[in-house]
Amino acid sequence: MSARKIGVTELVLRDAHQSLMATRMATEDMIGACEDIDNAGFWSVECWGGATYDAAIRFLNEDPWERLRTFRKLMPKSRLQMLLRGQNLLGYRHYEDYVVDKFVEKSAENGMDVFRVFDALNDPRNMARAMQAVRDAGKHAQGTICYTISPVHTVDGYIKLAGQLIDMGAESIALKDMAALLQPQPAYDIVKGIKDTYGDVQINVHCHSTTGVTLVSLMKAIEAGADVVDTAISSMSLGPGHNPTESLVEMLEGTGYETDLDMERLLRIRDHFAGVRPKYKEFESKTLVDTNIFLSQIPGGMLSNMESQLKAQGAGDRINEVMEEVPRVKADAGHPPLVTPSSQIVGTQAVFNVLMGRYKVMTGEFADLMLGYYGECLGERNPEVVAIAQAQAKKEPISVRPADLMEPEWEHLTEEASKLEGFNGTEEDVLTNAMFPNVAAKFLATRAEGPKSVAKTPEQLSAEQAKAAGPAQGITAPVKYNVKFAGREHSVTVEPA
Amino acid sequence: MSARKIGVTELVLRDAHQSLMATRMATEDMIGACEDIDNAGFWSVECWGGATYDAAIRFLNEDPWERLRTFRKLMPKSRLQMLLRGQNLLGYRHYEDYVVDKFVEKSAENGMDVFRVFDALNDPRNMARAMQAVRDAGKHAQGTICYTISPVHTVDGYIKLAGQLIDMGAESIALKDMAALLQPQPAYDIVKGIKDTYGDVQINVHCHSTTGVTLVSLMKAIEAGADVVDTAISSMSLGPGHNPTESLVEMLEGTGYETDLDMERLLRIRDHFAGVRPKYKEFESKTLVDTNIFLSQIPGGMLSNMESQLKAQGAGDRINEVMEEVPRVKADAGHPPLVTPSSQIVGTQAVFNVLMGRYKVMTGEFADLMLGYYGECLGERNPEVVAIAQAQAKKEPISVRPADLMEPEWEHLTEEASKLEGFNGTEEDVLTNAMFPNVAAKFLATRAEGPKSVAKTPEQLSAEQAKAAGPAQGITAPVKYNVKFAGREHSVTVEPA
Repeated sequence: MSARKIGVTELVLRDAHQSLMATRMATEDMIGACEDIDNAGFWSVECWGGATYDAAIRFLNEDPWERLRTFRKLMPKSRLQMLLRGQNLLGYRHYEDYVVDKFVEKSAENGMDVFRVFDALNDPRNMARAMQAVRDAGKHAQGTICYTISPVHTVDGYIKLAGQLIDMGAESIALKDMAALLQPQPAYDIVKGIKDTYGDVQINVHCHSTTGVTLVSLMKAIEAGADVVDTAISSMSLGPGHNPTESLVEMLEGTGYETDLDMERLLRIRDHFAGVRPKYKEFESKTLVDTNIFLSQIPGGMLSNMESQLKAQGAGDRINEVMEEVPRVKADAGHPPLVTPSSQIVGTQAVFNVLMGRYKVMTGEFADLMLGYYGECLGERNPEVVAIAQAQAKKEPISVRPADLMEPEWEHLTEEASKLEGFNGTEEDVLTNAMFPNVAAKFLATRAEGPKSVAKTPEQLSAEQAKAAGPAQGITAPVKYNVKFAGREHSVTVEPA
Repeated sequence: MSARKIGVTELVLRDAHQSLMATRMATEDMIGACEDIDNAGFWSVECWGGATYDAAIRFLNEDPWERLRTFRKLMPKSRLQMLLRGQNLLGYRHYEDYVVDKFVEKSAENGMDVFRVFDALNDPRNMARAMQAVRDAGKHAQGTICYTISPVHTVDGYIKLAGQLIDMGAESIALKDMAALLQPQPAYDIVKGIKDTYGDVQINVHCHSTTGVTLVSLMKAIEAGADVVDTAISSMSLGPGHNPTESLVEMLEGTGYETDLDMERLLRIRDHFAGVRPKYKEFESKTLVDTNIFLSQIPGGMLSNMESQLKAQGAGDRINEVMEEVPRVKADAGHPPLVTPSSQIVGTQAVFNVLMGRYKVMTGEFADLMLGYYGECLGERNPEVVAIAQAQAKKEPISVRPADLMEPEWEHLTEEASKLEGFNGTEEDVLTNAMFPNVAAKFLATRAEGPKSVAKTPEQLSAEQAKAAGPAQGITAPVKYNVKFAGREHSVTVEPA
């Protein structure tokens, strides 16, 4: 019996550095690995979207479109893949449909092949337009299930959602486990259920590794029929990141499944990023493995967010109350998956409830969530809290697709962009300003200065190592001392000779 | 259907710190976790043997027997478990049978319950006496299969070995994967094969996590019928260590298998060791995940050993030749598993072969290996190399059990120990000197000074953090300088303003 081939999506150019080093990796640190990545035999190379667009203009003075074109040129054989937040695109609000069309069109034009389209609430209506635009561009539209655990989320519910995505024209289904919550058994059951119900639709499985459990989940998903799984090269793996690519290859030996990846290429990719990773050490989280989320249901990032909000209010000691409040707020909102932006919205409201009394003050975002302006959740919303939201926000609840209420905005967005210093007249620039209006103005004005990496230089790294190695001897910069001698006090400045 | 219960052996007190921090953890850093470990519901607590005995007297000025008695007192409900290298006990040579009997008897008397007996060559004759001694003491004798990959090692061979161990009276079988080489499919096949062939004998599976693959192997072993698996609490897991205990618990949810471990206790154990681990950071390896061994068949520790041998000879650039030589030497020796001491013996000979010509110079240890003085390997030894060994060592090859050639030595060992300063007259002290004659003399002489931890103190840790955090500016205490200015030299004392 010949082995069934399992495709692999390599994450090192997008989600790996987003998860491990706050999305700070500069294009120049990726270029050296592209030839090997292009020839290693991956099903696709995730390299764009998610937070990379925002980080490129906010921290790196890099044009994300230029990065995409670079990847296209350096990896001509590969399917390039991006993560797209449906009607939000890569921004933090809903966009009118024509903007969605434009973004997808320009992404395809600049080289994107596979669009993983998701919505934080799993509301298919928020994914539909982007999926259609991908199909219109002749590209691969991947519909996404965000996995979470709640009293209303069931295996059957996920299977049903897969059906809705297939009906919308999804060429494949992604099962996306952003919090490393997907245990082996539900991984198996969901994949098996989708295959049994809808026939041989392609299923891609994306897991983070935070809880230490999910390589097993990938194994069980493969046994259940998954076609493609996501991993990151070992030197950029584990912790809040993903399972190591090489480990996946070795895991499958003799099992009747195989990846056909070129191990020599993988080791060269590994060695490249083993050299890059230390340069971004200051952005790394200390988490190695953490199973707390199975108990608390609160993702690590959300927890630290709430802690700093509490501290800012001088109430750092009330975190346990807030942690008990979160499940209640989440239930009131109809059990949204806790992922950006719903995690922040629910978390902040839980903090407000503890500090000021339950729903005495409601954030604008939470009111919008309660009133349907982010879309529908799987669970029912608590009608009493909906009423409070309506009163506080002075807005009606809606049941239509949120973007249906939007006016055409492309012309206005073009006009806004055209006023900016450094605007180059392209639709790409219009989109940059549309998604990150505050950041884009500054970026466009400084773009001509070129990329500004935040990585440590080799010199800085060896200076740090030297400092860590020996005891601190003397000074590295001028220092002023009070010096007493021959009975008199002098102010003396000393600097390295 | 009720879930099948899976036992767990917690490794934090022995193999976890042996693998992660060169066995340096002091008893005082373990004591605070013992109550939770004792009550968490483990099948057993591995806490002694392996390298801990050597490290205790060599680095920590701790009496290993006192450590064992402490554990016995603090964990009255638990099965205490140790790793015992068969006829080698915990030392680096073969001992005469009465010494083996004595060691097992004293270990049982001081509180040991489960003896995992192994031999580096998988030669059952080297395990037989120790297993019998354990049974005579009324304790649990666990026979061990060391897992390796070679042309002569097959699933059927491992199943056959399990049968030999059962015939020797093993109460359970351990499948021991010290190099993280055990992939999911062979894990399944070996466990299934043993169960199918010999009925319901208890099987314990021990994997390291170095290659990132082996939590999946534990899952497949459990599916095949394994009864107990080894893990380490998450804050002392991964890298060259083991899979995290909490991840195992979460992995099994909903699968039809369960551990019954108390998660609250686990989290307290985790938090305890999360505080301890940084104190031993200087002993930690940097390895996070490394799949090289699947290609090279050379364990990481053996590789770095050979590298330093080459460097000492000014031949650091010849490591690739040595890596190609290792499989040849290993084959000539009959394919021993590469684990202490065979890994050092084979590695050193490979270095000699490259530097001086193949078998031009043979180490005494390698000659002994070729001549049968360590026992039998699974493969045939190369007769030409056996002849060279015979000529160089001026010794005949043997086919009997090595310990059969030994004279009674207990009386002599007692005499030797009684000459030492600090000898307390106990058989435990005789055994300490028997196993580590050079180290024991110094230890016994200084034992009265009490344990000397090599951990960093909280003060040292925060000083280091402070140093790493800010740039080192100036001095922290008064310093005297000779300063020349205005043409004259002055002795000047400077202190922080």
